[in-house]
Amino acid sequence: LSLEALLLSLGLGLISARFLGELFEKAGLPSVIGEIIAGIILGPTLLNIVQPSTIEEFSQIGIIFLLFIIGLEIDFKEMKKISNKAIVITGIGISISFAGGMIGGYIFGLSAFDWRAPIFIGLAFMATSVGITVKTLYDMDKLNTDEGKTVLSVAIYDDVITLIALTIISASIGETVGFTDISALLPLVSVGIFFAVMIFVVPILIKVIPRFTKTAIGAEVILSVAAGLILIIAFISESIGLSAILGSFLLGLAFRNIPEIQKTVHDKVESVTNGVFLPIFFFYIGVLTIITPDLLSFTTLGLILLAISGKFIGHFLGAKILRLKNRESAVIGVGMIPRAEVLLAITEIAIGLGIFISQIRTIMVLIVIITSLITPLLLKLLYKKEQPKLEACELPERAPIEPEEIIIEEKKKEIKKEFKEI
Amino acid sequence: LSLEALLLSLGLGLISARFLGELFEKAGLPSVIGEIIAGIILGPTLLNIVQPSTIEEFSQIGIIFLLFIIGLEIDFKEMKKISNKAIVITGIGISISFAGGMIGGYIFGLSAFDWRAPIFIGLAFMATSVGITVKTLYDMDKLNTDEGKTVLSVAIYDDVITLIALTIISASIGETVGFTDISALLPLVSVGIFFAVMIFVVPILIKVIPRFTKTAIGAEVILSVAAGLILIIAFISESIGLSAILGSFLLGLAFRNIPEIQKTVHDKVESVTNGVFLPIFFFYIGVLTIITPDLLSFTTLGLILLAISGKFIGHFLGAKILRLKNRESAVIGVGMIPRAEVLLAITEIAIGLGIFISQIRTIMVLIVIITSLITPLLLKLLYKKEQPKLEACELPERAPIEPEEIIIEEKKKEIKKEFKEI
Repeated sequence: LSLEALLLSLGLGLISARFLGELFEKAGLPSVIGEIIAGIILGPTLLNIVQPSTIEEFSQIGIIFLLFIIGLEIDFKEMKKISNKAIVITGIGISISFAGGMIGGYIFGLSAFDWRAPIFIGLAFMATSVGITVKTLYDMDKLNTDEGKTVLSVAIYDDVITLIALTIISASIGETVGFTDISALLPLVSVGIFFAVMIFVVPILIKVIPRFTKTAIGAEVILSVAAGLILIIAFISESIGLSAILGSFLLGLAFRNIPEIQKTVHDKVESVTNGVFLPIFFFYIGVLTIITPDLLSFTTLGLILLAISGKFIGHFLGAKILRLKNRESAVIGVGMIPRAEVLLAITEIAIGLGIFISQIRTIMVLIVIITSLITPLLLKLLYKKEQPKLEACELPERAPIEPEEIIIEEKKKEIKKEFKEI
Repeated sequence: LSLEALLLSLGLGLISARFLGELFEKAGLPSVIGEIIAGIILGPTLLNIVQPSTIEEFSQIGIIFLLFIIGLEIDFKEMKKISNKAIVITGIGISISFAGGMIGGYIFGLSAFDWRAPIFIGLAFMATSVGITVKTLYDMDKLNTDEGKTVLSVAIYDDVITLIALTIISASIGETVGFTDISALLPLVSVGIFFAVMIFVVPILIKVIPRFTKTAIGAEVILSVAAGLILIIAFISESIGLSAILGSFLLGLAFRNIPEIQKTVHDKVESVTNGVFLPIFFFYIGVLTIITPDLLSFTTLGLILLAISGKFIGHFLGAKILRLKNRESAVIGVGMIPRAEVLLAITEIAIGLGIFISQIRTIMVLIVIITSLITPLLLKLLYKKEQPKLEACELPERAPIEPEEIIIEEKKKEIKKEFKEI
């Protein structure tokens, strides 16, 4: 009977999540929201057909694989090429986002449940899901402008620095270490060893993989080997008190060291992740999202406002400090507001570690939905205001849009990542 | 802690199954055996690291997806083209294989546990896994001979008729229906409706899928939709008392009705099946295979001998009736001996329905291993005996081997199916 429940839940989850995901995408919104709403509909909040426990394992594998892909996709060389401008904006932007989240965590008393909760609220607020921004700018033919390019660079930095910060913070305060006796240090030591091994040893060790897979016949062998390694590293990561997804993220970074199979690994893992496991993760988030009347509280409203304003103010300020124009700064600020998978992943980590109460999840889901809804509206408003002026005097500047390769590639990658497959 | 166990078991399972699978393949044996042995090593028989319950769900999805792929791959048009010769040989061959298994079931008292057990032993003995035969003939440069072509055709017929027989028999005796009152007929009625819907209605209904997926952006959407439908049909099939894999097999047949996306569906589902779920199924079979001293019994020995002799005698006789030469008939008879995934799938169905005791599984695993080991040896022996005579007088006949398209395609498909990806 357990198999029956699994088959039904997974089957309904995949079909409904994909169906609503496509509908939302057609409406110009991230498919992630549709997938979450599919879960809300089939979960306890409405129809009560799917129980979270049935699909928990599949959903966890989805987010574990996603973080591997994110790690694999980070292109440090490309990042170095991007102007220093973006670093400054990111630095100021995410610091203020983090501060906003942390202050909110204290104000609304989340630290009463666990002293680390405000820190993780701050962390969760740092990430950006640039997909909806890119799509909106692209639809308005504004992606290939100065601010469009900056938005892309800053968004990449935002995510990378958020994940690095998450890794470091998890490693230091993931375990409630007392420091009262020497044995309490053991978890910290094992975390330190794990990081050292993942960053310095594993990238060298995995160089032997292509030697084996070259003789192997199918690309499926590469998928099996990659998936197997991801799961084992996720297990080690989890069993020393870190989150499983941190291990898979670090493994993704390590796999960048074997360029000869990087693309195959990426495409194969991405295909099974986006086709099977990841829709189930977002669906699962929806199933877990219990919408009750007491959700309408100052905490909910306050955190949503802080999530939006922290990003906007932070990145707007960062851009203004670099003396960018008002509208350009505003576009960058607004462009960074949307959140999606990284915010949800950090939320799941914090709930898994017992740092968040599960009600936080519903607030975070609302943040994902609301930020995705308001961003296109705000962006259109920003351009509408200055549009006439532009049309009159800046026409020659906009006319011959050259297909600059970096931007086009970035754009494609981001659109692909955020919209078509997630 | 349950997530940790799952991550470790799946990770170790994938890596070890693939590694041993590759090793066996290099040694000229089916990778399936290596994958099963990986399970025997990590399971309770030896290291006791992996518990079957942890990976049961993943393994079930593996075999459910496999039967979908098998259904999708059956080419009835191609089958019609193949000579009637093959039909006769298959008919006689699998009848005797079935009879052998059934008699064995009665002789060794398996009917004492469930009256349907001998019938399912017979069914399990009917299927052929032609991969090892094809590979051996190919290595000896004998695949493009008359007997080589016949072996391929007969093997395809064997599998298709076995699966059809399985479907019909499961539908009729899968449920222990008493017929004492009218309500006992309800399961039979629902099974009948299910079959009618799957065979006549679903193939027409799914024609709408390409209309939706054409507008969808990624091939991952097709994977999600296909996987979702497979799981839902498997659920329905399971919940009316049939096996889940029968539903997915029928859905695979139905999907042949949408040629415009058939290839994409096939490749995407095959990739995730062979890369993630199916190795876990064979690994799981290994984990469940408990090798104990009392396995050395007359039942074990008798069933193994019947599995081998039933196939050989049946197909040899069939070929002789058609007045094929002795060696040709012997090659066909020996070529049909190997079993693998279909035999294991039928075994799991029977265990799931409570028809087999679980010890039968270990005997079936031995049959898979032994038949795969002896077939290449026997084939080489057959050709060795007649080789000098051939070299002397039949040289011109063998020399200009023309790449006949059907055979090459069949060969590629079979080799691919049996050796590289499973």
